Amino acid sequence: MTTKIPVGILGATGTVGQRFIQLLDEHPWFEITWLAASDRSAGKLYAEAAKWNLATPVPPKIAAMKVSAAAPDKSTPRLVFAALDAAAAQQIEPAFAEAGHAVVSNSSAFRMAEDVPLIIPEVNGDHAPLIKTQSWYKKNGGFMVTNPNCSAIGLVLALAPLHRRFGIDKIFVATMQAISGAGYPGVPSMDILGNVIPYIAKEEDKMEAETRKLLGSLNSSSVIPADLVLSAHCNRVAVEDGHTESVSLKLRSPAQADEIIAAWNEFRCLPQKLKLPTAPEQPIIYETAPDRPQPRLDRDRGKGMSAVVGRLRPCNIFDWKFTVLSHNTIRGAAGAAVLNGELLKAQGYLG
Amino acid sequence: MTTKIPVGILGATGTVGQRFIQLLDEHPWFEITWLAASDRSAGKLYAEAAKWNLATPVPPKIAAMKVSAAAPDKSTPRLVFAALDAAAAQQIEPAFAEAGHAVVSNSSAFRMAEDVPLIIPEVNGDHAPLIKTQSWYKKNGGFMVTNPNCSAIGLVLALAPLHRRFGIDKIFVATMQAISGAGYPGVPSMDILGNVIPYIAKEEDKMEAETRKLLGSLNSSSVIPADLVLSAHCNRVAVEDGHTESVSLKLRSPAQADEIIAAWNEFRCLPQKLKLPTAPEQPIIYETAPDRPQPRLDRDRGKGMSAVVGRLRPCNIFDWKFTVLSHNTIRGAAGAAVLNGELLKAQGYLG
Amino acid sequence: MTTKIPVGILGATGTVGQRFIQLLDEHPWFEITWLAASDRSAGKLYAEAAKWNLATPVPPKIAAMKVSAAAPDKSTPRLVFAALDAAAAQQIEPAFAEAGHAVVSNSSAFRMAEDVPLIIPEVNGDHAPLIKTQSWYKKNGGFMVTNPNCSAIGLVLALAPLHRRFGIDKIFVATMQAISGAGYPGVPSMDILGNVIPYIAKEEDKMEAETRKLLGSLNSSSVIPADLVLSAHCNRVAVEDGHTESVSLKLRSPAQADEIIAAWNEFRCLPQKLKLPTAPEQPIIYETAPDRPQPRLDRDRGKGMSAVVGRLRPCNIFDWKFTVLSHNTIRGAAGAAVLNGELLKAQGYLG
Amino acid sequence: MTTKIPVGILGATGTVGQRFIQLLDEHPWFEITWLAASDRSAGKLYAEAAKWNLATPVPPKIAAMKVSAAAPDKSTPRLVFAALDAAAAQQIEPAFAEAGHAVVSNSSAFRMAEDVPLIIPEVNGDHAPLIKTQSWYKKNGGFMVTNPNCSAIGLVLALAPLHRRFGIDKIFVATMQAISGAGYPGVPSMDILGNVIPYIAKEEDKMEAETRKLLGSLNSSSVIPADLVLSAHCNRVAVEDGHTESVSLKLRSPAQADEIIAAWNEFRCLPQKLKLPTAPEQPIIYETAPDRPQPRLDRDRGKGMSAVVGRLRPCNIFDWKFTVLSHNTIRGAAGAAVLNGELLKAQGYLG
Repeated sequence: MTTKIPVGILGATGTVGQRFIQLLDEHPWFEITWLAASDRSAGKLYAEAAKWNLATPVPPKIAAMKVSAAAPDKSTPRLVFAALDAAAAQQIEPAFAEAGHAVVSNSSAFRMAEDVPLIIPEVNGDHAPLIKTQSWYKKNGGFMVTNPNCSAIGLVLALAPLHRRFGIDKIFVATMQAISGAGYPGVPSMDILGNVIPYIAKEEDKMEAETRKLLGSLNSSSVIPADLVLSAHCNRVAVEDGHTESVSLKLRSPAQADEIIAAWNEFRCLPQKLKLPTAPEQPIIYETAPDRPQPRLDRDRGKGMSAVVGRLRPCNIFDWKFTVLSHNTIRGAAGAAVLNGELLKAQGYLG
Repeated sequence: MTTKIPVGILGATGTVGQRFIQLLDEHPWFEITWLAASDRSAGKLYAEAAKWNLATPVPPKIAAMKVSAAAPDKSTPRLVFAALDAAAAQQIEPAFAEAGHAVVSNSSAFRMAEDVPLIIPEVNGDHAPLIKTQSWYKKNGGFMVTNPNCSAIGLVLALAPLHRRFGIDKIFVATMQAISGAGYPGVPSMDILGNVIPYIAKEEDKMEAETRKLLGSLNSSSVIPADLVLSAHCNRVAVEDGHTESVSLKLRSPAQADEIIAAWNEFRCLPQKLKLPTAPEQPIIYETAPDRPQPRLDRDRGKGMSAVVGRLRPCNIFDWKFTVLSHNTIRGAAGAAVLNGELLKAQGYLG
Repeated sequence: MTTKIPVGILGATGTVGQRFIQLLDEHPWFEITWLAASDRSAGKLYAEAAKWNLATPVPPKIAAMKVSAAAPDKSTPRLVFAALDAAAAQQIEPAFAEAGHAVVSNSSAFRMAEDVPLIIPEVNGDHAPLIKTQSWYKKNGGFMVTNPNCSAIGLVLALAPLHRRFGIDKIFVATMQAISGAGYPGVPSMDILGNVIPYIAKEEDKMEAETRKLLGSLNSSSVIPADLVLSAHCNRVAVEDGHTESVSLKLRSPAQADEIIAAWNEFRCLPQKLKLPTAPEQPIIYETAPDRPQPRLDRDRGKGMSAVVGRLRPCNIFDWKFTVLSHNTIRGAAGAAVLNGELLKAQGYLG
Repeated sequence: MTTKIPVGILGATGTVGQRFIQLLDEHPWFEITWLAASDRSAGKLYAEAAKWNLATPVPPKIAAMKVSAAAPDKSTPRLVFAALDAAAAQQIEPAFAEAGHAVVSNSSAFRMAEDVPLIIPEVNGDHAPLIKTQSWYKKNGGFMVTNPNCSAIGLVLALAPLHRRFGIDKIFVATMQAISGAGYPGVPSMDILGNVIPYIAKEEDKMEAETRKLLGSLNSSSVIPADLVLSAHCNRVAVEDGHTESVSLKLRSPAQADEIIAAWNEFRCLPQKLKLPTAPEQPIIYETAPDRPQPRLDRDRGKGMSAVVGRLRPCNIFDWKFTVLSHNTIRGAAGAAVLNGELLKAQGYLG
C-alpha cells in the first residue's frame, strides 16, 4: 500500500505534460493518479492519446491510465500540476482552485496576478505565503502557484545570488532558445532547420516582468518588484532542449570575478536545506572552459535542474558579461513545477 | 580578346577562396588568371586541390587551372584578393605588397594596422587614401586594403546611416554566427549539431575594435576611431550561412522609429553612385514582418550583399533594439573584398 | 502588351504553390494571372495569405494579387497548375477539368487513374495522348495531367535510360527525403532535428506503382505498366530540399559501368529537343567523386531540374548499385508540372 | 579496498574512449586504473588531454588520472579495452597481446583475422574459444577479441534470431549513420548540416564481411562464414547518435510476421543467462508504432544496448522488410566491447 501523495496532471499529453510524467515516475513523495487533457484526448488511454516524444519510454502504468477531461472530478487529487497553454489555463485552472485544489501551474496565464506567487524555490521560496491572500484559499483551501517562463528561470537563477550580494541595476540578455520550448507540434522544421528565428511572441515581455517579480520582496499582501531594468532579445535556434543566454550585467556594488563565481558555486538555498527530492545539489554550476556552457553538454547537469554559467568576463558597457544555460523543459518547466510542489509540501500547504 | 583586369586569389581553396571564385566567375571587370594556395595544393590542378563546397559547380576554366605557391611570381597579376587565415596572412600578404601588388585582403592580420584601410565601401570608402601612407605604396605602388570581420560587417552597415544622422553612443550586440564563418573543416559537426557554442576566439575583440575604426574619420594620415562603445557576445549556431545579430543601441540624438527605418531603407552610398558591379541596389533592407530577418530566408538578398534589418522596437535600457542579418561569406568576406577591389578600380588605385 | 499564356495556380499559398510562383516569375511562355487557395486565404492579398518560405522574395506583382476561392470562375485561365493535397485535389481538380480547364496537377489523387497521364517529359512524354480518352476532353476540351511523387521522379529519371537500353527487372530503393516534401507546417522540428523518421505515409506504395506506370507503354487507351518489381523503403531526414536515394538494380541484359554512365550522361529527350524553357540541358548528371551526389551541393544542378547520380558500383545481389538525388520541390513537384505544362503547349494541347 | 578487476583503456581520449569511461564508471566488475592515448596526450592529466564530448561530466577520478603512452608498461592491467583507429590499432594492439594482455578491441584492424574472434555475445559468444588458437595465447595467455563495426552490430542482432529459426539467404541494407560514428573532430559540420553524405569509406565492405563471420559457425580452429549474401548502402546523416537501417530480407524457410516479431522479442542469449552487467534485459525490442524506431527516441533503450526494430512488412522482392536502430557508440562500440569483456570474464578467459 502506497503512502505517497496522489497528484494529477492537467495537460498531460503535451511536451511539458510528458516531462511531468517522466519526472514523477518513481518520485519518492508523489504518485500520479489522475491525468487530464483536452476533449480530443479525454476518454482514451494515455498511450493512445499522447504522441510520446521523450527518449525514455512511457511508464507502463501511465500508458494504461485513462485520460480525464480537463475539469475537476471526484477522482482529482488535491495537488494538480498544470501544463496547459496560456489560453486554456486562463479558463481551466481557476476552476480547479475554486474546487479546492492546489494548482501548481507552468502556464503564463496567472504568473503576474497580484495574489499568485511566482516561485523559483531557490530564489524566492519565501513568496509562498502570498497563497493565503487568494480568495480560493480563504474559502476552501484551494490555491494556485506558478513558475516562471522557461527563458526567465535560468537567467534568474544566475542573477539571484548576485542580486543578494551586490545588487543588480541593469541586465541585457539575448536568448537562443530550444524548439521544445514551443511545445508540439510547435516550430515547423522548415522554419528552424539551419535557421534562426529572431522572435518568440510575448517572450521578451515575460522575461522582463517575471524577473522583477521573482527578485522582488514580499510585502504583507503583494510582491514589490525588484528595482532593476531588463532588456531582452529572444531568439529560437535549432536546439532540441536547453536555452542558452548571453547576459551583460550592471551591479549596484562592485564585485570581482572570483566573488561572482563564488556567489554562484556556493549558492544553496531553501530546496537544498529542505532536501527537496528534485532540488539539485548545486543549483548553479560555473564552468571554467572558455566555450561552455553548451546545451548538448550541460543541459542535464543536476538531472536537468542546475543552471550552468560560464564565460564571466568584463563588459565594455556594464560591469560583467557571461553565458547561462538551463534545461527548458526540466528546470524551465516541469521540473520547476515539481520543485514548487515539493516546496509546498515541505511548507505544509498541502496538509 | 579579353579586356578584363586580371586578378589573383591567394588562399583559393578554402571556404572564402571558393566564394571569390564563385563571385568573380563572369565578373564584368575582373578575370581570375592566377590561383595560389598552401604548399599542399601548389602544383595541383584546382579541381584536385580544392574540396569544393558550394552549391554551384566549380567553373570549368578554374577547375583546370594550376594552383601556384603562395608567393608572388611573374604571372601574379597586380590585383590579388587574399583569403588566408590570419597567421598565414601575417607572413604572406606583406610579400605581395612589397612586390608591388594591390592586396585586397579578407584577413584580420592587418585590419587594425595604422596605415591599412579597413573598408566597407558604403560606410567609409573615403578611408581609401590611407593607402598612400603605406611604405610599399610610396616605394612601388604596392598596397594593402582590408575588409572587416564577417560579424562586424552586417552590424556596421546597419549602424552607419544611424551614426551619420543621429550619432551612436553605445551598442550591445549578441551574435548567432554561421558555421561557414569558421572555414573548412572548421566546426566539427559533433560540436554544433543541435547545439550552440557560446564562444568564437578573438571575435568579440575584433567586432569592438573594427566597428570603431570603420565608423571613424580619416585624418591626414590615420583613422580617428569613432567615439562609441560596443560590447559583443559572440555565439556559433547550427546555420550554414548568415550571421544573425541582436542589437541594442543608444543614440546621441533622439530618433523616431520611422526615421530610423527611413535611414536604413534610403541608405545609398559611393558603391551605388559609382554603380560598382557587386554593389547591391539597396545595401540595407528593412523587413516589417515580426519574425525577420532569418538566415535561410534573407541571406541572399541583394545577391548576398544586402544587410537585412528587422524587429526595430524600443529598448528598456538604451533607445532601440533590432535584429540584423548578413551573409557571412558573401557580404561578410569574399563579396566585401570584391567590392573593395571594385572601389579601388573606380578610384584609380589600380591604374 | 503581353502575349504570354495566362496561367492559374491552385493551392498557391503552400510549399509547392510557392515554388510554382518562383518558377513562373519571368517565365518566357506563361504568366500567372490567377491564384487560388483555401477558403481561409480567399479574398486576401497573396502577401497576407501566404507565409512565404523561399529564399527569393515574393515577386511584387504576385504579392499584390488577390487570392481567389478554389473553384473555377470567369477569370480562371485555361491552364491551371494545381498544388493541392490529395484530399483537396480529389474534390477540386475534377471541377476545373469539367469546366474546360487544362489541369496540370502535382497531386497524387488522380495519378493512377486509367485515363490520366502520369508524365515525366523526358521519360514518357508520349503518354500525353491519353488525355484524349478523358470524358472532359471529349466534352469540352478540359483535361488533367499529373506528375509523379517527388520520391519517384529522380529515381525514374535515373532508371529510364537504363530501362530503354538494357531493360530493368528489379529495383531496391531506400530514400532519405527532405522535409519540404511534407509541405508546411509539415514535419514538426521536434520530430526531425537530429533524427530520422523511417516512415512516410503511403510513399512506398506510390513509388512502386508510379514507377511501373511511368516506365510503361501507351496502348490505344491505357498504359501497360512496365514489367518490373520495385521495393521501396522511405525515410525522412533533416534536409531542407533534395531527396537522396540508395538504389540496387537488376537489369535484363548485362551492362558495363561505362555503358551505364554513358546512358545517363547522354540521355536527352523530348523536352531537350523541343527546347522547353524549364528543361535542363542535361537531365541526368553523373558525378564521379565517391561521396556524391549530396543534397546541399547537387540539388540545384540544372536549376533544380537535373537528377544527379553517383557511386555506381557492383551490387552483391543484383547487378549495380548507385545513389540518385533530385530537388523534390523543383524537379519533384512544381518544376515537374511546369515542364508538363510546357510539353502540353508544345504538343498543341492548349491551343 | 576494491576487489574489482583493474582495466585499461587504449585510445581513452577519443569518442569511443570517452564512452568506455562513461560506461565503466561505477561498473560492478571492472575499474579503470590505466588510460593511454597518443603521444600528444601522454603525460597529461586526462582532463587536459581529452576534449570531453558527452552529456555526463568526466568522472572526477578519471579527470585526475595521468594519461600513459600507448604501449604496455608495468602498470597496464591484464584487461585492456582498445578504442584506436584502424591504422593505430594495426601497430599497437599486437604489442599488448604479445605482452600477455587481454585486448578487447573495437577496431576494425583484426576483426577479419582468422584467429581473432569477432563477437556479439548474444549472437556468437560461442566463437570465443578461437582465442586459444592465437599464438600469443599459447605463449603467455595474451589474446585479442573484437566487436563488429557500429553499422553491422544492430543489423546482426536483428538478423541472428531469424537466421537461427528460419535461415537467411539474402539481405539488402541501406544505412543512415550518425556523425559520432566518425569520431572527433570527424565529420565537418559544413559537410553534414542539412545534408546527407552517401558514402562512408570501407563501411559497406565491413558490413558485408563481418555479418557473414558473426553469423558463421566455429570450426575446430576457424569460423566458417554464414552462407548468405549482403548488399549494403552506407550513408551519413545529421544525427548525433544512433544508426538507422532499412533492411530487406530473403529467408530460407517461410515465416509469418508474428513469428518474426516473436523471434525478436523473445530473443535471450548467453549474456542474459549469465546476467552480464551490461547485457540488456531484452536485446531486441520490436516497436509497433508505424514510424519507429527513431534515433532520438529509441537509441537509449536498454541503456543503449538494445537494438530496436520496427515496420516489419512484406517486401515486393524478398520476403520481409523492416527498420533497425542501435546506438552506435554504446551497443555499436564501447558497450559492445565492455559486454565482450564481461563475457570473457564469465567464461574464465581473464582468470
